[in-house]
Amino acid sequence: MARVVQKFGGSSVADAESIARVARRVVETQQEGNEVVVVISAMGDATDDLMDLAQRVNPNPPGRELDMLLTAGERISAALLAMAIDARGATAVSYTGSQAGVITTAAHGNARIIDITPGRIVSALNQGHVVIVAGFQGVAQDTKDVTTLGRGASDTTAVALAAALGAEYCEIYTDVDGVFTADPRIAPQARRIPQINYEEMLELAANGAKILHLRCVEYARREQVPVHVRSSFSDQPGTWVVAAPDIPSGGIMEDALITGVAHDLSEAKVTVVGVPDRPGRAARVFEVIAALDVNIDMIVQNASVSDDTTAISFTLADADRPRAIEGLRLAQRDIGFTDIIYDDMIGKVSVIGVGMRSHPGVTARFFSALATIGINISMIATSEIRISVVVGEDDVPAAVRAAHTAFGLDSESGEAVVYAGTGR
Amino acid sequence: MARVVQKFGGSSVADAESIARVARRVVETQQEGNEVVVVISAMGDATDDLMDLAQRVNPNPPGRELDMLLTAGERISAALLAMAIDARGATAVSYTGSQAGVITTAAHGNARIIDITPGRIVSALNQGHVVIVAGFQGVAQDTKDVTTLGRGASDTTAVALAAALGAEYCEIYTDVDGVFTADPRIAPQARRIPQINYEEMLELAANGAKILHLRCVEYARREQVPVHVRSSFSDQPGTWVVAAPDIPSGGIMEDALITGVAHDLSEAKVTVVGVPDRPGRAARVFEVIAALDVNIDMIVQNASVSDDTTAISFTLADADRPRAIEGLRLAQRDIGFTDIIYDDMIGKVSVIGVGMRSHPGVTARFFSALATIGINISMIATSEIRISVVVGEDDVPAAVRAAHTAFGLDSESGEAVVYAGTGR
Repeated sequence: MARVVQKFGGSSVADAESIARVARRVVETQQEGNEVVVVISAMGDATDDLMDLAQRVNPNPPGRELDMLLTAGERISAALLAMAIDARGATAVSYTGSQAGVITTAAHGNARIIDITPGRIVSALNQGHVVIVAGFQGVAQDTKDVTTLGRGASDTTAVALAAALGAEYCEIYTDVDGVFTADPRIAPQARRIPQINYEEMLELAANGAKILHLRCVEYARREQVPVHVRSSFSDQPGTWVVAAPDIPSGGIMEDALITGVAHDLSEAKVTVVGVPDRPGRAARVFEVIAALDVNIDMIVQNASVSDDTTAISFTLADADRPRAIEGLRLAQRDIGFTDIIYDDMIGKVSVIGVGMRSHPGVTARFFSALATIGINISMIATSEIRISVVVGEDDVPAAVRAAHTAFGLDSESGEAVVYAGTGR
Repeated sequence: MARVVQKFGGSSVADAESIARVARRVVETQQEGNEVVVVISAMGDATDDLMDLAQRVNPNPPGRELDMLLTAGERISAALLAMAIDARGATAVSYTGSQAGVITTAAHGNARIIDITPGRIVSALNQGHVVIVAGFQGVAQDTKDVTTLGRGASDTTAVALAAALGAEYCEIYTDVDGVFTADPRIAPQARRIPQINYEEMLELAANGAKILHLRCVEYARREQVPVHVRSSFSDQPGTWVVAAPDIPSGGIMEDALITGVAHDLSEAKVTVVGVPDRPGRAARVFEVIAALDVNIDMIVQNASVSDDTTAISFTLADADRPRAIEGLRLAQRDIGFTDIIYDDMIGKVSVIGVGMRSHPGVTARFFSALATIGINISMIATSEIRISVVVGEDDVPAAVRAAHTAFGLDSESGEAVVYAGTGR
């Protein structure tokens, strides 16, 4: 008998019919001899609807109360799923994050899981029940107030529960068929990746692939929880995220240099111009940004040329750009730079794969593929298993397709894969 | 500084505008120097909507999960009210029934409050916050599962909290102006009762006046909590329910024999015909009913006339009638009666008032008023401060008006009172 955690997102429980479909799958998994814990998101647009209500009574609602409000969404879908399972003749109990023992920090709206004390869950499993846990929520260790983990964090709840319960694996049901070698809406020849290791999945998630939340993959890697990303609309296998794939990440090809191509259109590039080329001035720029709790992705510092100044460029989430620029403007006199310019019409394209570790030729092949079709690269960043470039936003689709072809990832048949979902 | 509990029903928080209006009233109460605890119901039709969702996934949902589901409604309105209070510059924290320390039995859907441990509430009050408590819910002492107290029980939560917190009084905001001497939709000359004692309010609630839940009044009497029933749509005083009114319950009249006239159309009369007139047979009838957990109101046993049988009539909630008759049919051979007939076209009219204790003439005046307009009485029941009669359903409005006039309750001006609400 295996213990399994299954997570279903909002689109899988959008209405009564969808909930009944999820119930069927859960009961089948139990009937196959498994202990089943289900983590559930709020129904369809429920969270957005609650957020709208909040905005109407208070445009800037206190975080504690917003968490009290939003967590009602998962509580509702959890109770309904338990009822639907009961209607199929099995028994189920639903728990809030708090009841399930999901202990978090007190950072309302963006809490982190500190610990899970799954006593009630284990007890219910021992009694033969399916256990439903409201995702996305927990209870703060110190204040005992209800918290939320940030959007999309039901995946993290599921993986954390799988780790705490010693589950054999964690299934993440979504509206796509798995993780692909590129976004099939941009690269029609993209293929599903049957298995991928945690590091590659981390790089994909961090560089624009939205299929799994970054924090969820970090958790899975740290706790070594095998994660199966699959479609809730089919019974086909999806993508296994594991420590050591027993088939090459690239799928069929033994010698794959890279596993996938990710892209990200959500960043902007900010350039601070005329920074005095003296020790500590560049550091001041990043101290200001850090104090605003804004994350920076890529950085390029241009060498001094004619005068005694330098230019510093960095990328960050475009949503953080106004705040970052505002903060830098306030520190302009102190740092002594002359101007700030920005460009939000950029995109990042990354090639990712453990195969590149032992192949120095990857960078050359990537850049050459882009040069051949006349795409200009404005920034470059690398890790051991990733190369990212910043290009113009309009060049991103062509760059993704060129890299996908150059590294031999196109499906052999030359046919476009069937792609069920919206690329979420 | 007084500590006050205010309860607002679903119609008072039906939308964002209503919630803002409640927030204003709450903040004003705090600014007058009070510590304020607010008990809140779910928004408008929220509970019905959730119930509909439940029915769609499971026509017979398990009680534990139904309680998990329905309690989301009050959680939502509580959080929204806290946000609305924050928007007015005060601070508020919302608590679920469980967080507020409302400990109940485990009878899902109809739990009873066992105890209240208001530690978190007191702590929040000490920090200067308004405290919002989700009504209608608690947590089961043994299972730690979330429970509901049954519909309309937010009033009970409010009174129980007022008792546990040593509040000066409990205000129940509703959509009518208070308790009236009769239902103004039937008796236009009915007047608001400024003060009424617990016993009279209990009799009114038990005999058809729907303004306060029976259990709430019982709780208020036991714990001696003054309750102020008033309209959330005006600043006019409503009705104070207290131990010892310092003005006569009837209002202006010193010598009022009765305080109000209540009526109830929700009962039916069942007659068991041909019960053998031997010791224990009548008792068997009521044992059968009691085993079904059905409450009986009035009972009449007819004396034997020609044969050795008797007829037993009783009234009960019409909703329980099919179940009761079914149960009796199954026991027909055992008890030995010949038939069961029923009449659901009946109504009960009750005159209530502590004034009748010392006035033996009340019964005569009541019956005479009905006889004068040709109304036939089919059953009679009395308590120390109440006389109830069963009449034909069509006769109820005339009977209410006749009693109201006969006991001098009509407003002196002869004008109909302004009646804000729907008589809920």
